[in-house]
Amino acid sequence: MSSSYGKNIKLTIFGQSHSKGIGMTLEGIPAGKKIDFEKLDRFMERRAPGRNAFSTTRKEADKPEFLSGVVGDTTCGTPIAAVIMNTNTRSQDYDILKDIPRPGHADYTGFIRYGENRDYTGGGHFSGRLTAPMCIAGGIVLQLLEEKGIRICTRIASIGGVKDEGDLTAYCLGGGIDTKADDAGTVMGDGENKESFHIDIVNPGAEGDFPTISEESGRKMQELIAEKKAEGDSVGGIVECAIFGVPAGIGDPMFDGIENKLAQIIFGIPAVKGLEFGNGFEAAGLTGSQNNDAFCLENGQVKTRTNNCGGILGGISDGMPITFRVAFKPTPSIAKEQDSINLSTMQEAKLVVPGRHDPCIVPRAVPVVEAAAALALYDIINA
Amino acid sequence: MSSSYGKNIKLTIFGQSHSKGIGMTLEGIPAGKKIDFEKLDRFMERRAPGRNAFSTTRKEADKPEFLSGVVGDTTCGTPIAAVIMNTNTRSQDYDILKDIPRPGHADYTGFIRYGENRDYTGGGHFSGRLTAPMCIAGGIVLQLLEEKGIRICTRIASIGGVKDEGDLTAYCLGGGIDTKADDAGTVMGDGENKESFHIDIVNPGAEGDFPTISEESGRKMQELIAEKKAEGDSVGGIVECAIFGVPAGIGDPMFDGIENKLAQIIFGIPAVKGLEFGNGFEAAGLTGSQNNDAFCLENGQVKTRTNNCGGILGGISDGMPITFRVAFKPTPSIAKEQDSINLSTMQEAKLVVPGRHDPCIVPRAVPVVEAAAALALYDIINA
Amino acid sequence: MSSSYGKNIKLTIFGQSHSKGIGMTLEGIPAGKKIDFEKLDRFMERRAPGRNAFSTTRKEADKPEFLSGVVGDTTCGTPIAAVIMNTNTRSQDYDILKDIPRPGHADYTGFIRYGENRDYTGGGHFSGRLTAPMCIAGGIVLQLLEEKGIRICTRIASIGGVKDEGDLTAYCLGGGIDTKADDAGTVMGDGENKESFHIDIVNPGAEGDFPTISEESGRKMQELIAEKKAEGDSVGGIVECAIFGVPAGIGDPMFDGIENKLAQIIFGIPAVKGLEFGNGFEAAGLTGSQNNDAFCLENGQVKTRTNNCGGILGGISDGMPITFRVAFKPTPSIAKEQDSINLSTMQEAKLVVPGRHDPCIVPRAVPVVEAAAALALYDIINA
Amino acid sequence: MSSSYGKNIKLTIFGQSHSKGIGMTLEGIPAGKKIDFEKLDRFMERRAPGRNAFSTTRKEADKPEFLSGVVGDTTCGTPIAAVIMNTNTRSQDYDILKDIPRPGHADYTGFIRYGENRDYTGGGHFSGRLTAPMCIAGGIVLQLLEEKGIRICTRIASIGGVKDEGDLTAYCLGGGIDTKADDAGTVMGDGENKESFHIDIVNPGAEGDFPTISEESGRKMQELIAEKKAEGDSVGGIVECAIFGVPAGIGDPMFDGIENKLAQIIFGIPAVKGLEFGNGFEAAGLTGSQNNDAFCLENGQVKTRTNNCGGILGGISDGMPITFRVAFKPTPSIAKEQDSINLSTMQEAKLVVPGRHDPCIVPRAVPVVEAAAALALYDIINA
Repeated sequence: MSSSYGKNIKLTIFGQSHSKGIGMTLEGIPAGKKIDFEKLDRFMERRAPGRNAFSTTRKEADKPEFLSGVVGDTTCGTPIAAVIMNTNTRSQDYDILKDIPRPGHADYTGFIRYGENRDYTGGGHFSGRLTAPMCIAGGIVLQLLEEKGIRICTRIASIGGVKDEGDLTAYCLGGGIDTKADDAGTVMGDGENKESFHIDIVNPGAEGDFPTISEESGRKMQELIAEKKAEGDSVGGIVECAIFGVPAGIGDPMFDGIENKLAQIIFGIPAVKGLEFGNGFEAAGLTGSQNNDAFCLENGQVKTRTNNCGGILGGISDGMPITFRVAFKPTPSIAKEQDSINLSTMQEAKLVVPGRHDPCIVPRAVPVVEAAAALALYDIINA
Repeated sequence: MSSSYGKNIKLTIFGQSHSKGIGMTLEGIPAGKKIDFEKLDRFMERRAPGRNAFSTTRKEADKPEFLSGVVGDTTCGTPIAAVIMNTNTRSQDYDILKDIPRPGHADYTGFIRYGENRDYTGGGHFSGRLTAPMCIAGGIVLQLLEEKGIRICTRIASIGGVKDEGDLTAYCLGGGIDTKADDAGTVMGDGENKESFHIDIVNPGAEGDFPTISEESGRKMQELIAEKKAEGDSVGGIVECAIFGVPAGIGDPMFDGIENKLAQIIFGIPAVKGLEFGNGFEAAGLTGSQNNDAFCLENGQVKTRTNNCGGILGGISDGMPITFRVAFKPTPSIAKEQDSINLSTMQEAKLVVPGRHDPCIVPRAVPVVEAAAALALYDIINA
Repeated sequence: MSSSYGKNIKLTIFGQSHSKGIGMTLEGIPAGKKIDFEKLDRFMERRAPGRNAFSTTRKEADKPEFLSGVVGDTTCGTPIAAVIMNTNTRSQDYDILKDIPRPGHADYTGFIRYGENRDYTGGGHFSGRLTAPMCIAGGIVLQLLEEKGIRICTRIASIGGVKDEGDLTAYCLGGGIDTKADDAGTVMGDGENKESFHIDIVNPGAEGDFPTISEESGRKMQELIAEKKAEGDSVGGIVECAIFGVPAGIGDPMFDGIENKLAQIIFGIPAVKGLEFGNGFEAAGLTGSQNNDAFCLENGQVKTRTNNCGGILGGISDGMPITFRVAFKPTPSIAKEQDSINLSTMQEAKLVVPGRHDPCIVPRAVPVVEAAAALALYDIINA
Repeated sequence: MSSSYGKNIKLTIFGQSHSKGIGMTLEGIPAGKKIDFEKLDRFMERRAPGRNAFSTTRKEADKPEFLSGVVGDTTCGTPIAAVIMNTNTRSQDYDILKDIPRPGHADYTGFIRYGENRDYTGGGHFSGRLTAPMCIAGGIVLQLLEEKGIRICTRIASIGGVKDEGDLTAYCLGGGIDTKADDAGTVMGDGENKESFHIDIVNPGAEGDFPTISEESGRKMQELIAEKKAEGDSVGGIVECAIFGVPAGIGDPMFDGIENKLAQIIFGIPAVKGLEFGNGFEAAGLTGSQNNDAFCLENGQVKTRTNNCGGILGGISDGMPITFRVAFKPTPSIAKEQDSINLSTMQEAKLVVPGRHDPCIVPRAVPVVEAAAALALYDIINA
């Protein structure tokens, strides 16, 4: 049941890259919730292909049609189903991939797992295209979370060796790029009372074409992507996420904590190979006295002076921003010739991957991370 | 249902650090499987406290009593239940923690989540002690996986800034410490035929007191821990894991892939803040041509020249060793005075944590990572 | 997650009676299974409205469009999604039901559960129309079960006070209407080897317009339905089901046994109010010596002389036909004036239900019971 | 995962009739709930063996020991684990059953399912003894439901051909035995406000030794049981249940409705072969105008004049008492000689069942039905 996620909501994603349609069903959304479909379209566009020089030239409107679960613009309490019909498919591009699997891609494992009858065209069910239905569901749930005073912000933290500057939490809270990390997280979530957000939270992920804090870094990243594209190569990167407004006490110990739930869905995004919360792997190099976040009081509210734990202790939110970082490997589909094998002749073979591919999927992955985070969080909070 | 894990097996862990007993139930193990209880005891001992200078001085036999699911030494197909009675508890050590939460620990979030009636003594259900039941279940399942020709190996990759040397995969395959990473993974899993393991696989995690490949590195790590202990401080570290013998084609796309399933349980181990598969975060800095693992043939079998993907493509095993790394934060319970708050007076307060605590939980976490990996894998393979 | 079913397969049903479309997603079907779409259409037609004088005059093709999960006529291992667009809706028929709930229908409970924003038109998600997607999924799975040598047979056992004659099991096995119950079940399932069915199994549910064993009884039932229709009334009935070819040893004790799994889905069919296995409620009036099914040997195979237990002992199949009976209440939507209340004025009110309704849903429910049984069984066997 | 139940709570039952211990874990109970352990003991006693002439002479205290999840008498929010050690086992009684399965019992199916290594002694995991852990969990949850103003009442509706008199709902509401069914259910649940129960609800299931409404009927039933016992035989019966105080709007459509959830757990009680809600199978013989429950207003509240639907429409409560009936087959373990087979010689064989068995398990099943109903309801309401 690998294409379903959630306990209090149930998301099911269906479709292959070149099937008649792709889509999702989403159960567990209460009746009476207004969905802003225009806002959802704008969210979907952030993921859509063909937006700029760095993404695949396959262009599709990616506008979901809602079949059920809404009456007018309002949910009616039953499963929401939405479909995107696939129109711009060029399956013949993939003929060679039937026999010769792309290194780094799921072509080979899909063949072993599903056999001759797998749908290899366009990567089938493994295609990044399947993140579109995840964004439909996530985009809906994002709106519901905002209603509760919860905001999910993202940025590209790095592309290849190029890093963004500034502290994400501080930036989102309006501090600008030069804010020091120490100022991070001065706004604690309340969750019940959205008025508690006296300042606007800025989501760099939703601003401009290229979601970095530093424009200069963004430019360098784009140059790097262009360079790799010209070389017939691709490049990976890191997406960082901060979630504001989650009240303390949300989540559970052990296997259904915030980290576990986020991890289960984040690793469901194609190309993700690493995930860390708070200071993550860095914490492994620190001492307890360096890493522990001291408690203090601010305006009578409990907070921590630092946020090394990423807002999560024992799987449960402590009221500080929830922060995590997601490592994306470089797109495996590259134009450069690669060594592979021919599965029908069982001989070694050279492969030049045909088709249209992103030289870097990280920019388009940014809203997908937001969508995934929103789904995990809503599933936890809705409990 | 945060204390349950699995779909094809169902593990439930119960108990608090100072409750009458702790234990586990494990459903889904077929009838007729012989359990080597002595081997299980030896596995449990690797996690047990009081083994050396670096672990808590709380000593408990940690010998599980099996209440059901086995007849003699053989499973009978019904849920296995095992209990460890808590005998050596000193709850009074924890009186101060009722009001003053430890920074970096779940004391505060547990209070917000469960209120006045939480069991704060010894960390309650959040205690590392609850990894003992996980090791009972994992230790059983490890034996069943070995029967299928699957071996799970671990080492401490780093403590604080001290790194182990050598390549884990190559070492496990008998190459010794000097083997280059390029030689990694020349043995592909078969899964059906354990004879395919013509060479012995060595698990550094089960060798000696301190599971590193390089003795020299191990010594330095122990010195660092001793130093931090003397300073009343603690230190974090990284555990690395390699799984051999998983045949290609195991797992699923999207939300129930190998990465997702491992992530859900690994983040259930207390103090874990990061997880990466294959080269993980490093991949984010590479190009596709650097990161893609070229396919080749070896003795007629498909393999990859490198193993950057950690044996997983699209959530599904490719037959190469499955590799991942787990970041543990430093033990939050340190002797140094820390800043906290008093939850009953709602004033800032100083805290010197009482009780007996590991200055570094990483050495004892090594078998826990093996147990967790075994449970995830068995759940997937048993599907 | 009330619209999802299954553990080894995962069925999700979406849609409301008058939404843009209705449909289903079905995960867990292996790759490489050929689906006979014509056969599926014929199965769907058995449920379709407008077939005869006794069903609603709402006519819809009910031909599913498959969006994913199949390539050509073969499954590819990923979720199967199918949609039926709603075309012939007359929502205005339902305006009065917004305020005045139909007695015996879910109008009132849907209002309390989902509030003002429920989709009340046509019964919304509660509509019998939602059994169409269940039949898509069930019809596919029926074909897969037949491949394994499993056959699901049904008949109408009674409508109102009119009972069918003959023993279902004996009839299906070719014994005709006069076969005594003692001859029931002489063919035991093998499950692996479909050749073991040396005789053809006849499914009365798929024969003729009106699925009874006795034509005479069928005629009387139809007369009764016509009579009730003329009176502006409706009538209930019982559907009986026998499943052949399930090998002994399938199922589990306690909460996931064959009875539990069947019950969970059977009570998901609208209007079902009772379910019994084997001799069911009759067993409550018997002694152990009357009710126990003596074991015997037939051609070296274990069987039981009688089949009072309906082929299930301890939740697990014993190799005899699995038999059960399902009680359907009369259609609540009747033309006769009824007492209700007006939810907006909160005063008592008279209601004459508008719209097109079946005077007896039992004939159309027959394939739905087959579909539900197939889904439950496949979920168990696929384990 | 057949020994686990629930979505919002998670019950796991472990143990075999003659294993070292039996017990349960129960997750999902909030912290801060006081458990009245004496009341729980009294509830357990209603199920305990050896209470009167009609139950097995195996006597065990059946007093659970709580290992975790409670501090003192109050829940702390983590999984509750409780164990009953098996002390009075006479496994040698069962030696003959290793080879010769009891007709009507799960001995045979257990052998096929689990093979040589099943635990056949005392019925293993299939034993009625495993209803004790269900009663621990159910007894706890019953107390929590009572806090919410929900009361679960039961009676024996029939033993063999002997029926109890009176209407259960009317009797529970204080109407006595002569109350007509038309007076049923004049108190609607509120759920929030237990003050709404201005009259005491009487649970015949908890009164006296033999839970019938009519003492005369109870006497006749006991005579019948004694008679069957003397004949070396056993007899079945029906348990009826009515649940008061469930507010309207609880439950879900399709597969997780009240009927589905109750069915899944009720069919987990050994020997259950049928289940019907409201007038159940009787409804199949009625017309819509007879069966529909007309809505009316009473003191400004919506109610129905009759309660044929058993308080459930579309899987969702309508505020009237939830009513259902459960058919228990006669105990298969009887003293009379029976025909069976020898599984080791594969020859037909005669069997005289050894051991101590209830001639009628229905009286002891009454609290088990209450426990099961409580668990299902709590799981639904807790959602």
